[in-house]
Amino acid sequence: MTGAAKNGADALISTLVANEVTACFANPGTSEMQFVAALDGVPAMRPVLCQFEGVATGAADGYGRIADRPACTLLHLGPGYGNGVANLHNARRAFTPIVNVIGDHATYHRQYDAPLNSDIATLVKPNSIWAKSADSPDTVASLTAEAVAASYGPPGGPVSLILPADAAWLPAQGEPVIAQKPVRHAPSGAAVDAAAKAIRAAKNPVVLLGGQACRAEALVQAARLQAAGVTVYTDTFVARQPRGAGGFLPKKMQYFGEMALAELAGVDLMVYAGTTMPVAFFAYPNRPSVLLPEGCETLTLLDRAEDAVAGLAALADALGAPKTGPVQSLALPDAPTGKLTSYGVGAAIARHMPEGAIICDDAVTSGAGVAANTATARPHDVLALTGGAIGIGLPLAIGAAVAAPDRKVLSLNGDGAAMYTIQALWTMARENLDITVVVFANYTYRILNVEMERTGAGKAGPSAKKLLDLGGPDIDFVAVAKGLGLPAVTCATAEEFEKAFAGAMSQRGPMFIEAKI
Amino acid sequence: MTGAAKNGADALISTLVANEVTACFANPGTSEMQFVAALDGVPAMRPVLCQFEGVATGAADGYGRIADRPACTLLHLGPGYGNGVANLHNARRAFTPIVNVIGDHATYHRQYDAPLNSDIATLVKPNSIWAKSADSPDTVASLTAEAVAASYGPPGGPVSLILPADAAWLPAQGEPVIAQKPVRHAPSGAAVDAAAKAIRAAKNPVVLLGGQACRAEALVQAARLQAAGVTVYTDTFVARQPRGAGGFLPKKMQYFGEMALAELAGVDLMVYAGTTMPVAFFAYPNRPSVLLPEGCETLTLLDRAEDAVAGLAALADALGAPKTGPVQSLALPDAPTGKLTSYGVGAAIARHMPEGAIICDDAVTSGAGVAANTATARPHDVLALTGGAIGIGLPLAIGAAVAAPDRKVLSLNGDGAAMYTIQALWTMARENLDITVVVFANYTYRILNVEMERTGAGKAGPSAKKLLDLGGPDIDFVAVAKGLGLPAVTCATAEEFEKAFAGAMSQRGPMFIEAKI
Repeated sequence: MTGAAKNGADALISTLVANEVTACFANPGTSEMQFVAALDGVPAMRPVLCQFEGVATGAADGYGRIADRPACTLLHLGPGYGNGVANLHNARRAFTPIVNVIGDHATYHRQYDAPLNSDIATLVKPNSIWAKSADSPDTVASLTAEAVAASYGPPGGPVSLILPADAAWLPAQGEPVIAQKPVRHAPSGAAVDAAAKAIRAAKNPVVLLGGQACRAEALVQAARLQAAGVTVYTDTFVARQPRGAGGFLPKKMQYFGEMALAELAGVDLMVYAGTTMPVAFFAYPNRPSVLLPEGCETLTLLDRAEDAVAGLAALADALGAPKTGPVQSLALPDAPTGKLTSYGVGAAIARHMPEGAIICDDAVTSGAGVAANTATARPHDVLALTGGAIGIGLPLAIGAAVAAPDRKVLSLNGDGAAMYTIQALWTMARENLDITVVVFANYTYRILNVEMERTGAGKAGPSAKKLLDLGGPDIDFVAVAKGLGLPAVTCATAEEFEKAFAGAMSQRGPMFIEAKI
Repeated sequence: MTGAAKNGADALISTLVANEVTACFANPGTSEMQFVAALDGVPAMRPVLCQFEGVATGAADGYGRIADRPACTLLHLGPGYGNGVANLHNARRAFTPIVNVIGDHATYHRQYDAPLNSDIATLVKPNSIWAKSADSPDTVASLTAEAVAASYGPPGGPVSLILPADAAWLPAQGEPVIAQKPVRHAPSGAAVDAAAKAIRAAKNPVVLLGGQACRAEALVQAARLQAAGVTVYTDTFVARQPRGAGGFLPKKMQYFGEMALAELAGVDLMVYAGTTMPVAFFAYPNRPSVLLPEGCETLTLLDRAEDAVAGLAALADALGAPKTGPVQSLALPDAPTGKLTSYGVGAAIARHMPEGAIICDDAVTSGAGVAANTATARPHDVLALTGGAIGIGLPLAIGAAVAAPDRKVLSLNGDGAAMYTIQALWTMARENLDITVVVFANYTYRILNVEMERTGAGKAGPSAKKLLDLGGPDIDFVAVAKGLGLPAVTCATAEEFEKAFAGAMSQRGPMFIEAKI
């Protein structure tokens, strides 16, 4: 673009970079060609091609969770955005800042309802916390800055900036606009006092953490509450949570409602910090939706927009809690042996995962075996599936690896989950990202076999089985991964997995491991 | 389900089958378990598992285009529907009847905003011609019948029936409800007379066909117009059109606007039959949006909802056209030789494709080489990409093969296009569908290299190239296809392709061919 006049696309990218948005997960089409061309004028923006938009949006989520600032996506009109919806749903539930740039037809061309025309403004509504169309090139810079600021919330989320083709190609005036980054405020003294008073009056008080209250500094304060006799829980699915040695590991709300309620029996107070009332993931006939024991009082210490560290520290101080609380000691499991199970996989991961690793967890029923073993492993971060739309484990890892090139990233996936966004493997190869992918191959949607019984739907007959079973044919994930450019191995025993995983940890770059469990 | 009480899920499936909806392309989750279980009580409904919802919706599109009645999809809440949006966009543009069944949380559970909760009603709006939620089990049967009827239009399209989990599991009264299938009416005599009068007065009249006016019986009438001196065109992208020997092959509106306008120079009248004003696929700086020559008069003979056969026949009669018009004679090309090109692929396809084959075309820039060679091949049907959202060629083929198990189905795909819904290969293997897949592997979004120049965006630098190029690494499509369960070969010469393709035509079942062009 050297020597070319500055246009709307240039203004957009310059403004993004000026606001520290420096990664672009893209799947462009004709209406985005100006944006694509303008990238060459702004080398600070890293373009990452994804061969499916669900990879791009999931990667932006992973990036945002690790970098604590938004990446942008580049999506091709309504259908391109549509392909990204499921992982934007997850990102909305993770409160991750993301700036979606959605190319559209030129403003004057929209009226003709050409084949790719669609109602983008309506389509983006359910998963955007801010959405506008930059219909004139001179509004691009200011709307881009507005979009970045909006993505931070608090509590943050995906925003949608629609960029008509003519706004991208027409000359644009002015300099990049810098956005004011919003700040999180500490909760009021009254909220802290009320929580402290209620906790002191309760027999069996619990604090439930979510979102920012599950980050490292906040957990230091939460550990003090635990030391003061308050049981600390986190939400079942947390966007980003440090785990392992040296940190505090709260209990986790159980996934199945009746188990959660059994565990909470006797709890008479639940204080929310960065989250809201715990509810069942799904409804089932004759099972509860709300996961609070009968008569349990509730109270909000701080909401998702507030400063969790300040709020938890103030509460700990008000309760006269010790200055420090319990932390996990390093303890690594023995080498797993014999037939491979998710617990064996978890043991091998715990043994060899380096400090600072990032686990992207889309392992569904296999996740428990990993979580159990890694609780006392070297310190690491876990990014969970916040919105229930499987197919995020591979894309999340791309984003995390781009955001933190010096950290080892693990992507753990159920086989059914991995298939949703299997195209992600190619991007890992293309970008030579330091990601080790594990796919738990059990050739079934195992969770659905469990859920079918729970919904009272009865036993699966031949038609139902066809929809729960992923075999016939069993997918050869090693062949698929190699075809998409990754080195890949399969493991059927714990010893094989341990060896393969240790090998992956001892080198840099992408690696694929099929774990036959 | 033997002996179980009839519930809302049973009512839904029974009503679908009673209305001739007998194929279900599914990717279920927990909220759809009642539907899944109920399938076993209604064996007339064929469940087809897709490991990604974009495969399910694209398959339903292919099914509807061939069967002329809807299939249903089974999708998991908002994110599951979201994954299906791009191909539903294409289906909307193809006016294909589809009944989307979208599972939702139990009605009483929605208020708790559990992780998978989202605004489904808004999300479905842009691509649904009808959408309702069956919030009570006793409304399920009547709303299902209403949904099926609505999907037929005319002119037809996807509808969205939201099924909360409790409406599925609670007891439902009554019998299946039968929907009245809407009929297409012939255009008025006044419209026919006006068109005939305008055509007689014009120097260089053209008729432009779209949708139902491109079906076999309508083309017989359109050929009579051609015989009477009216030049007949079709839209660039047609949902379903018979081609090859024995039928009339109208001209096709060119994709690039300036080429279309050059070809139409001197045309002073354009009469629309089942379509509307031709417009450019994209806008470009200083190029036209509307593809009508200056001063060209326009007139609608029949709209998309009207009976195209009756309308075209009436116009031919009014013009005193001959009883029959021109048809293509069978003429097969010579065997291709040497380096493989899209034209060589097209020649081999034309030589060996059996009568009655169905081509699902998502070949993008490689499609022209096939179309040129197959114009005089054995009679076949072509299903085109109507909405511009690539990634439909593999799913369409699944639906076509399920709808017409006795016809050979060809799925032709650009490599970039194939990657969007590559999961479809597994379903082809699972269902042993008689589909031959061709992927044109050129390791680039070739169309975007062309479009980049046309949008005036300049020459691609290193950043831009990263987003246009699909190499580095080159995908080994044979490995991927084999991993997903298909027999697969690669071809780099015309001779290799001819041999592989002839072999695929001589047997039944799925086959994958990578065409290195």
